[in-house]
Amino acid sequence: MEFTIKRNSFFEELSKTSKIIDYKSINPILNCVLVELTNDKLVLISTNGTLSIKCVLNNDNSHLEVKQTGRFLIKSKHILEILKRLDDDLITVIMVENNEIKIKTTKTEFNLNILDADDYPLIGFREKGIELNIDAQEIKRTINQTIISINEWNKKIVLTGMNFKIKDKKLLISATDMFRISQKTIPLKLQENEDINITIPFKSILDLNKIIENTKQLKILINENYATFILDNTIFQSNLIDGQFPNVEGAFPQEFKTAITVNSKTILKTLNRADLPTDDNLSSIINMKIQQNKIFFRSTITDIGTFEEEFDNFTSEKIEDLNINFNTRFLIEAIRSFDDEMVELKFVNNVKPVVINKKGSEDLKQVVLPTYITN
Amino acid sequence: MEFTIKRNSFFEELSKTSKIIDYKSINPILNCVLVELTNDKLVLISTNGTLSIKCVLNNDNSHLEVKQTGRFLIKSKHILEILKRLDDDLITVIMVENNEIKIKTTKTEFNLNILDADDYPLIGFREKGIELNIDAQEIKRTINQTIISINEWNKKIVLTGMNFKIKDKKLLISATDMFRISQKTIPLKLQENEDINITIPFKSILDLNKIIENTKQLKILINENYATFILDNTIFQSNLIDGQFPNVEGAFPQEFKTAITVNSKTILKTLNRADLPTDDNLSSIINMKIQQNKIFFRSTITDIGTFEEEFDNFTSEKIEDLNINFNTRFLIEAIRSFDDEMVELKFVNNVKPVVINKKGSEDLKQVVLPTYITN
Repeated sequence: MEFTIKRNSFFEELSKTSKIIDYKSINPILNCVLVELTNDKLVLISTNGTLSIKCVLNNDNSHLEVKQTGRFLIKSKHILEILKRLDDDLITVIMVENNEIKIKTTKTEFNLNILDADDYPLIGFREKGIELNIDAQEIKRTINQTIISINEWNKKIVLTGMNFKIKDKKLLISATDMFRISQKTIPLKLQENEDINITIPFKSILDLNKIIENTKQLKILINENYATFILDNTIFQSNLIDGQFPNVEGAFPQEFKTAITVNSKTILKTLNRADLPTDDNLSSIINMKIQQNKIFFRSTITDIGTFEEEFDNFTSEKIEDLNINFNTRFLIEAIRSFDDEMVELKFVNNVKPVVINKKGSEDLKQVVLPTYITN
Repeated sequence: MEFTIKRNSFFEELSKTSKIIDYKSINPILNCVLVELTNDKLVLISTNGTLSIKCVLNNDNSHLEVKQTGRFLIKSKHILEILKRLDDDLITVIMVENNEIKIKTTKTEFNLNILDADDYPLIGFREKGIELNIDAQEIKRTINQTIISINEWNKKIVLTGMNFKIKDKKLLISATDMFRISQKTIPLKLQENEDINITIPFKSILDLNKIIENTKQLKILINENYATFILDNTIFQSNLIDGQFPNVEGAFPQEFKTAITVNSKTILKTLNRADLPTDDNLSSIINMKIQQNKIFFRSTITDIGTFEEEFDNFTSEKIEDLNINFNTRFLIEAIRSFDDEMVELKFVNNVKPVVINKKGSEDLKQVVLPTYITN
């Protein structure tokens, strides 16, 4: 086996395949990347059980020149460090023995141990299914905005994932831990309403977010057991979580008695004061007393003391006196997902959830249940 | 007790005093900062046993207004978080009960638990001794350049410190672990040669470096048991290490058979390729074969493989064939201390240390012993 390739491209695609590797895996084979060289392309494959990834390098995208085909298995960590530290634009990789490759540039040579490619599990990548074409950057933003409501350690397994559902030719992406809900609506160009309701594991969502980087276009292929994400020269395939994801829309209140509008940065400053980092790292509970022109915030911070603040930097469409308590951190994370924008907080009473959205847009909804615990 | 103060100044000086605190201390009192308010100044004191610090705030440097004097003890971590998150320029601190203070701004109030100031140890700050006046930024740079040769866990206690010695009206700052030596010479404006030869503990040196920040002028006062560093409104006092620091100058070779000049960045790139991060985090051993126009570098990296490189990007005044081995990381750290400069590497033979200095200047010398271990 022998090939020459652009160092940067090889480094970048190897990094991508490495990102999903679970280094805690007890099987050393799964800490490796499979490198397969055919006549016209170099394929890199890795997997962590839940998730597999395949990157394709060729002459067009990475100046690949194949001298002799072949395949090997390598610990990506070391080869990445080497590629990072070399200077030349092009590198040559030669298999010198069954268990050794040589990486060559003009003046530098590394001899590296490799493993036997035959020991690697066979991974099938499905490239068929219902097809959705979406702006990759929009998906990345959506993941960041909604992942806050997933509790990775939830005992209800279906809630450890992010739900993708088609409704009225729109894609609804939802996450919930039963104390809060995050939901984003993305319009799609669909001919007909596809029947899609799948839940993707938390870890796959995290990794997908890392892989997207600056990619513009994302194709999602959905079939019975897998979701396949295609980005440029990368195929990313995840298992799905079985089970019925709760119908979260049912939990959204529709009629509100109080609606206040506030700049997200302003209210976040107040909430951050109410939730100082403590040794036990638990969130404080914040008490909000809403009156006509003022909100009184109050919290007790374990082992530290108490916080009180008078807040009047808001406008309201309608307002009724209300005394309500929240997990401060849930409220912070929900409001922070809106960046520096005017947000609307809509309340019914002190036991119904608050609904938060950008003023004038309901594309993204954050819903947080009040808590019954008081200070 | 009651005072008003500029929030930023109070935050900065509290941060300084907090930096030296050893949070692993089993005595909770030592995790606190002592706050003492007299008629015209606010004094903050903390200690970690080896090292004590005192910062003085007054009306000039921090808009201090004293309403009622007093003192208390507080866990700095929490109050720092609060000060960071407030918006107002000025804050008011009031002792409301024996065990509680209130921090007030226009709309926000925090009530915080405090401890009894009488429980804090009495710390004396010596402001007498032999006086040296030095550029604080030069000391900071010197610490960064020489601290590399200290092994904090050295069994020979005197080597766990940095040595300050006056010789020929110059200050020599030295560090060694017996495998390498770092020495910097700083000219002083002295009337006569003072008899100074003290060793300051590693931890104090680290903390001094953090405290200096952007301060310009540093006054050092040396007496029998302490070194006191005075920076603006901060006094920083360290214990000294007993024992005779080795006469490191005696280990410097004077006559060389080979002297090569190389850009530090260029040779660092090669050395970094020879020392990839491994699981055991031990440095590789680098073999250098020096010939008339070329150096051949070679290393074996545990569990990864081998490295070889031909290097010709250097000039030489005189050169003899030499085959010599070094701990790669020692060589990297020594050369890195020169930033992006032309450095000179001077060799005698394969058992005598290499001396490294900036081309044309011997203010900073890095000396590294070869190793007898070969690949």
